[in-house]
Amino acid sequence: MATMRDVAERANVSIATVSFVINGTKRVAPETRARIEAAIEELDYRRNVVARALASSRTRILALLHPDLEARPNATVIQFVMSAAHGARERGYDLVLWPVNDDEQMSHLLAGGLVDGALLMEVQIRDSRVDRLVASRVPFALIGRTENDDLPFVDIDFATTIDLAVGHLRSFGHQRIALVAQRTKAGNEPGRIMRAKAAYLDAMAALGRPPAVVAVEGTSAGGREAAHKLHDDFPDATAVILVNEGASAGLVKGLRALGRTVPDDLSIISASTTRELGEMIEPSLTVMAAPAPQLGRLAADALIDQLEGVQDTPPHILIPCTLVPGQSVGPAPDRSSTSRPEPKRERNAQTDS
Amino acid sequence: MATMRDVAERANVSIATVSFVINGTKRVAPETRARIEAAIEELDYRRNVVARALASSRTRILALLHPDLEARPNATVIQFVMSAAHGARERGYDLVLWPVNDDEQMSHLLAGGLVDGALLMEVQIRDSRVDRLVASRVPFALIGRTENDDLPFVDIDFATTIDLAVGHLRSFGHQRIALVAQRTKAGNEPGRIMRAKAAYLDAMAALGRPPAVVAVEGTSAGGREAAHKLHDDFPDATAVILVNEGASAGLVKGLRALGRTVPDDLSIISASTTRELGEMIEPSLTVMAAPAPQLGRLAADALIDQLEGVQDTPPHILIPCTLVPGQSVGPAPDRSSTSRPEPKRERNAQTDS
Repeated sequence: MATMRDVAERANVSIATVSFVINGTKRVAPETRARIEAAIEELDYRRNVVARALASSRTRILALLHPDLEARPNATVIQFVMSAAHGARERGYDLVLWPVNDDEQMSHLLAGGLVDGALLMEVQIRDSRVDRLVASRVPFALIGRTENDDLPFVDIDFATTIDLAVGHLRSFGHQRIALVAQRTKAGNEPGRIMRAKAAYLDAMAALGRPPAVVAVEGTSAGGREAAHKLHDDFPDATAVILVNEGASAGLVKGLRALGRTVPDDLSIISASTTRELGEMIEPSLTVMAAPAPQLGRLAADALIDQLEGVQDTPPHILIPCTLVPGQSVGPAPDRSSTSRPEPKRERNAQTDS
Repeated sequence: MATMRDVAERANVSIATVSFVINGTKRVAPETRARIEAAIEELDYRRNVVARALASSRTRILALLHPDLEARPNATVIQFVMSAAHGARERGYDLVLWPVNDDEQMSHLLAGGLVDGALLMEVQIRDSRVDRLVASRVPFALIGRTENDDLPFVDIDFATTIDLAVGHLRSFGHQRIALVAQRTKAGNEPGRIMRAKAAYLDAMAALGRPPAVVAVEGTSAGGREAAHKLHDDFPDATAVILVNEGASAGLVKGLRALGRTVPDDLSIISASTTRELGEMIEPSLTVMAAPAPQLGRLAADALIDQLEGVQDTPPHILIPCTLVPGQSVGPAPDRSSTSRPEPKRERNAQTDS
């Protein structure tokens, strides 16, 4: 089998120069590079990547396990995927995309021995895929969390995110704040929805207000449905927090169709989405921007740290979303139906932009 | 080195049962599966995937080479990426994501020997990365095209797509149709922009109308800029075709800020985007939906067919976008500035939904 020395001799350069070309660590003159690449080709040197993997029983390949994401191209998803790929590449690892639709398929892929470790996206609060990961003994990190906080994870800090959103709305005088969550199959609730709901319920309890929760599909149709539900079930709400990226635009369209103006009649914050999505909508939405570009990278880092023994304890990383003011939050309107009017704060601000 | 027979003996099952577990081809009782997985672990059988790759000098790994996509999470991109991953997986291949920001980095990755073949996204009309791919002798397929149509590619058929959009607008009586393209760096024009422009220019020549082309960034700000440019430079245009997904929402917002109503003052078709994006905007945009979910899969298939010798000739696959009517196309308004009024067709239709 060809070695790097063989390549160097055939191309009539030093071993260091061959290494520069192979590892991309230094610019090499095009003509020299071409000679080295020809030698690599002639000697079939490429097989050595596989040979090295065999010798070390390490492949330096990581898997990104995700459910079928073709159907719902949410803006934050691509940021997670791409930042995880970048993070892996920067540390000399390759990221394979594994669409897995059942956990048996996942087990068989993990048993195949291609990958040194795995990242799992779209984690549910109780998740049999996580049980399979643990059983497989393949090192992993979760993007999201189950109910077991001891496992290695990186996640959006939904509790802090909701607290920040409620605080922002309260500073505009809002007391009756609704939550638009995502409708999920029974027993298959994403951790992010459960945690956002819990934080919302805590915040409402602290405010002394009954909760107003609406759950709809993460689509434009779902958003329009949410507008109707809010109108019918919670007419006294003056503000709404969405933890349902896909329903954001439909909610605004549905409210307009009902003759309700944003933010004069209802203020809106869309939590855990992108700045770009907020800008697409009229009026521009105030959003809590998801730290997806950071979290994908941190997830890759957390996994590689485990593989390379950099980190002894499982990583537990939480980052809240960042408030990006738009034009969808304004002062709370007076509502005759509000039984106990409370003092409004910061009524001087017109919008939050 | 452990063989499948060793695993079967250790787990006290048949070789076929081990194969069922490893290849996921048949359901195996959980208890039996657990025993087989334990045997695989104890015997370190995973290394055999690597050993097989060494023996065959094939890794069954494909690369998806893409520029930095973190910054612009367009809805169609995730569909391309995910459908390519699905297509590869269904044929027993793994897809690694390789973010490459320069073509030297790309050459070094290809020389590493990890992958059997490569897919390249975001192809430019003259693209040095394609030259590197050809030089690497790694089999490949392009998602998009350079000026060399002989290379293996799958692509959106932009010529047909623009023809369909122009035909749809003409059926509503529009004669003066503008094009909003994407502003690109000099000498770095994506093939899709060039081909869409060429088809548009042909269509205008056939109509006997001077072209009206505006190029802006693919962002909400770019869309608002396009609204101003159309207003200032082409006030007689009654319809516009966007080949700039990211600017779609901003264009509608910019027109509204200028007091122009869609579709009464200006009809809009957004070409090469998703149905979901059209639904997010008010009024819902008529879109030409990109065949991204099909093309990603076809690209993976085209590459694997080459690798497995199924296909002798390089694949050349073109699919047009599909018209999805929204509320953004209506009858052409009468414009006193139009010097030669021509007969209107199908004036009875109010909108195209």
